[in-house]
Amino acid sequence: MSAALLSHIRIVLSHTSHPGNMGAAARAMKTMGITSLYLVKPKRPIDAEAEAMASGAADVLRGARVCASLDEALHGTVYALAVSARRRELAYASNDARSAAPALVAAAQEGEVAIVFGTEMSGLTNEEILRCSALAYIPADPGYSSLNLAAAVQVLAYEVRVAALGAPLPAAGGVPARHEDVENFYVHLEQSLRASGFLDPANPKRLMPRLRRLFGRVGLEQEEVNILRGMLNSYGKNT
Amino acid sequence: MSAALLSHIRIVLSHTSHPGNMGAAARAMKTMGITSLYLVKPKRPIDAEAEAMASGAADVLRGARVCASLDEALHGTVYALAVSARRRELAYASNDARSAAPALVAAAQEGEVAIVFGTEMSGLTNEEILRCSALAYIPADPGYSSLNLAAAVQVLAYEVRVAALGAPLPAAGGVPARHEDVENFYVHLEQSLRASGFLDPANPKRLMPRLRRLFGRVGLEQEEVNILRGMLNSYGKNT
Repeated sequence: MSAALLSHIRIVLSHTSHPGNMGAAARAMKTMGITSLYLVKPKRPIDAEAEAMASGAADVLRGARVCASLDEALHGTVYALAVSARRRELAYASNDARSAAPALVAAAQEGEVAIVFGTEMSGLTNEEILRCSALAYIPADPGYSSLNLAAAVQVLAYEVRVAALGAPLPAAGGVPARHEDVENFYVHLEQSLRASGFLDPANPKRLMPRLRRLFGRVGLEQEEVNILRGMLNSYGKNT
Repeated sequence: MSAALLSHIRIVLSHTSHPGNMGAAARAMKTMGITSLYLVKPKRPIDAEAEAMASGAADVLRGARVCASLDEALHGTVYALAVSARRRELAYASNDARSAAPALVAAAQEGEVAIVFGTEMSGLTNEEILRCSALAYIPADPGYSSLNLAAAVQVLAYEVRVAALGAPLPAAGGVPARHEDVENFYVHLEQSLRASGFLDPANPKRLMPRLRRLFGRVGLEQEEVNILRGMLNSYGKNT
């Protein structure tokens, strides 16, 4: 999968009360590479506060399509995911956001898809949810599940982006040291610690195994082995 | 694992410019069950806007500890995860937020841990990152990676919550070293390398950052710090 799929995803905000939240939502989605925004009957039009909250995503906000109904906003989509900040007592199967994302991304390979958010105060109505293909909830703390609207958009857009980009990237690092270079480092280290007196050959205890465990755990890089051996040489010079 | 682990996690905001963002961050973390907030030298104090943005999380905001330095905010922690909104050009291995969360949660089983966020404009400084155990980035769109501060807190808190609620990890290893003990080791190491001549104070290059990266990655245990400092003492004796 790839980021290009994200262009098939639209964010739908239904009956939003505060223009600032529409702006913040525009920013949240754009940071995740989603730029198609649909506004169903916003209570107030886009204003200066909305633009300020959008920051560098004012283009997304200005490009938003204002719709008279949820059906209009979902026109042409093959899949729509309704979002709830909490688990609903509803005769409707719901998945958490993580489990829901792959199905949405898979559908985006087939056509346009939507992620749908309700009002700040009460979320989506049951009627709205039933017009969608599936329901996802954000696994918030039961004691305080009140995510800001843009925060909810951020979480879903993030989940969808991660799903679209596929498996997590490997940690970025340097060139790993080869086995033989690490072994030579251990030989050098042991000699150095004998010379300093810290390692008593007659009573070595578990010193070298402990140090092997430490440096083995870190996954040494080539350049790090060079630095460590340079350090050992510098200590040896003064012995 | 369970949600109880979340009480071992503190959110650290360094040099935040806008009180409203501190409030929004408090709300974001509380929705994910994290309530311990540390503020390192906020540019402006908590005000009415911050409280308004905190919404039902004003208690988290009021309970925040204001610190004079990042070290103070990290005092007593066994693991600190620095967060970047983008991948850094830094000789420091970084994982995406999803890959980074399990290690943080595993460390939270051993003691207090922190997730650290920098300023709105420029994020964390390299110096701040080097005082942390690991670096995580949010895989934002390369064309627009400017997440709002509270949105970044929301994503990390969400990832950590999902990891904490997820499958148990095998416990491994000994007692993790505390932040202050690791910092004292670095002081000792630097003195030792100056004495040996390996570190030239007039031309330190990137030696200490490289070594911080190495030992930060490994997650030092208390006993390992003791061994390493014993080694340094043994080298010093012969100088």
